[in-house]
Amino acid sequence: MVLIKNILSVDKRVDILIDGGKFKSIEPAASDSGLASIHADEVIDGSQMAIVPSFYNTHTHAAMTLLRGYAEGHDLFEWLSQYIWPYEAKMTGDDIRFGSEMAAKEMIQTGTTFFNDMYFDIEKTIDVVDRSGMRAAIGITVMDNHSQAVTDQKVEFLKQWKDPTGGRIQLVMAPHAIYTVNTERLKWCSKLARENGLRIHIHVSETKQEVEDCIKAHGMTPVRYLDSIGLLGPDVLAAHCVCVDEGEWDILAKRGVTVSHCPCSNMKLGSGRFPYELAIKSGCNITLGTDGASSNDSLSMIQEMKFAALFAKSTGNATILPSNQVLEWATVNGARAFGYDAGVIEQGKLADAILLDMNDIHMQPCHSLISNLVYAADSASIKHVICNGKIIY
Amino acid sequence: MVLIKNILSVDKRVDILIDGGKFKSIEPAASDSGLASIHADEVIDGSQMAIVPSFYNTHTHAAMTLLRGYAEGHDLFEWLSQYIWPYEAKMTGDDIRFGSEMAAKEMIQTGTTFFNDMYFDIEKTIDVVDRSGMRAAIGITVMDNHSQAVTDQKVEFLKQWKDPTGGRIQLVMAPHAIYTVNTERLKWCSKLARENGLRIHIHVSETKQEVEDCIKAHGMTPVRYLDSIGLLGPDVLAAHCVCVDEGEWDILAKRGVTVSHCPCSNMKLGSGRFPYELAIKSGCNITLGTDGASSNDSLSMIQEMKFAALFAKSTGNATILPSNQVLEWATVNGARAFGYDAGVIEQGKLADAILLDMNDIHMQPCHSLISNLVYAADSASIKHVICNGKIIY
Repeated sequence: MVLIKNILSVDKRVDILIDGGKFKSIEPAASDSGLASIHADEVIDGSQMAIVPSFYNTHTHAAMTLLRGYAEGHDLFEWLSQYIWPYEAKMTGDDIRFGSEMAAKEMIQTGTTFFNDMYFDIEKTIDVVDRSGMRAAIGITVMDNHSQAVTDQKVEFLKQWKDPTGGRIQLVMAPHAIYTVNTERLKWCSKLARENGLRIHIHVSETKQEVEDCIKAHGMTPVRYLDSIGLLGPDVLAAHCVCVDEGEWDILAKRGVTVSHCPCSNMKLGSGRFPYELAIKSGCNITLGTDGASSNDSLSMIQEMKFAALFAKSTGNATILPSNQVLEWATVNGARAFGYDAGVIEQGKLADAILLDMNDIHMQPCHSLISNLVYAADSASIKHVICNGKIIY
Repeated sequence: MVLIKNILSVDKRVDILIDGGKFKSIEPAASDSGLASIHADEVIDGSQMAIVPSFYNTHTHAAMTLLRGYAEGHDLFEWLSQYIWPYEAKMTGDDIRFGSEMAAKEMIQTGTTFFNDMYFDIEKTIDVVDRSGMRAAIGITVMDNHSQAVTDQKVEFLKQWKDPTGGRIQLVMAPHAIYTVNTERLKWCSKLARENGLRIHIHVSETKQEVEDCIKAHGMTPVRYLDSIGLLGPDVLAAHCVCVDEGEWDILAKRGVTVSHCPCSNMKLGSGRFPYELAIKSGCNITLGTDGASSNDSLSMIQEMKFAALFAKSTGNATILPSNQVLEWATVNGARAFGYDAGVIEQGKLADAILLDMNDIHMQPCHSLISNLVYAADSASIKHVICNGKIIY
């Protein structure tokens, strides 16, 4: 049991009791509040802090933190083929463990308690997540250039899988993209995922070139192509979706697909501007991801929110994507996509949260807590991070 | 005298002696280096740190930190007329001192040692700068709606002015903008500035509406108009320049005008995208500014560099504005514009610098120090800040 006394939540002060990994009770702060007298294992004086939901980073490659700052000034395909893939070919399991550890540390320090990962040697990353106290969706990455033996090994791993954390980790099928996984294998992935109750994580329409190549190969755009082979559904997380037209947004919305928007990575690799107007209009479940530190080069979701909120306004509309909406993209929308009843500070919800230091200079003055969080905060504003009811930072 | 031993500078380790406000000597780090044996007043072990130039924030309104998070979701004119100006009308001198103090604190913590300010009650801000140890250019703001008495007072202040810091503060004439200062008064400002050896600081072409209104009123665009009245020169800092055409960039470059690019503010107020391609091609001296915390809402130049570097790439060119170039915008270009021989870590230059904590998670690994600084660092990466040879943080 953790008791947080007299903490700011949006615009009022509350006492909060956390038990069994959930917000058991939230009451207006008062010396005679029922909660204030409870004997908790840990009591936190929240009088100089605010509580906000912690972040759900819905698209990253944690171990790629090893490549932070490694190769700037290249577009996606040049960057992947000439720099990233050759570097990755030399990485060992120990490297992947080390990269994932750095990522977990940075994510926690910047208020993230869940990440959706796509990488290799996943046992290493699973072990890091287990020890970190975070949640994660760990992708079983599938690419055409993997040998049959590697693929068989992955299927075997999946069949024997038991979550060592008792609920904080879920496996996900992760066919990399339509340009690295052929139609037959995409169908196989989707079948395997659905037979085993796994979600699907895939890069979709990240660049114009991907769209043009898809039209050449399949006579239609990527979202239409994926829909035509039955891959799209409410269990799918499509990362990027930069080059998606209005009709495709309607398909994504109709199928219940969740989209992970990664503004920093899209800008850095010259992939273009996410069509905020179409995406919002479609009613699609939109979430935020940092992508790997290799193309960002930060894993801070606070920063990612600001980039999304400002990039959305960059064509001249100052009213689009207000701070409370982009906070939903970064929190509750991501939680919902992965089946967690979390992402808001409410009684009964999973206790994933950030305690902000209201004495931090970035948080002063406080005309609006959420505006300050989105537009002014940085890692120095974060005092504690709670995941699944445990204080992990 | 400050001696920094064995610190990383770009890609080599050096010993640095700071004396008389300058980098007196920089030598390769070695136990037998001539510097290592000097008895300095302060000796810093730089083995876990890197040194980079500190930031020159060339456009801000420090006291507006009081309005951080105050009014989001409005374009510039609505924001100014319906929210900012009415709020400011109620601000007292004490408010301005308090806002400036918060700003100075945030700027120092995020590695800025100089800011170019435009606001009111400037004695308050001057006092804050004096005590902070920073440098600043303090604008004498001129607007048509000021009474003659207020204007007379400003002229009187200028005539009696003596820098209390012995060289860290300079006064600047700051006609607010072409839509708030008429032609006659602009000419008067420019004459007064040049008679007294002051630089000029003015908002230019921040929005399309400003350009359209200028064409209606004067039959030409803002840069052409300012040039026609003789205002432009190497002593002028033009803030924003979002809506500037190719011919105007040539005029700015030819006149030696310095431009302050403020990406966050321009995006947040829906002012549009800075024409990076034209600006860079023109050869103009480009610098970076955060604008006020009221339209950013941060004063972090680290963040501003990342926004500029990524926003430049947002239309699909991954090679434009690399990290070393945007660092020049944030440092040496700003220093040069205001007459300081600073902004690079070199023998003989003014000792304005940041000591980065290389153990901070955002700085690891370090394939490229500058790439990490621009794309990954935040305030937690900053260990010490040096201005004019003094450790001010």
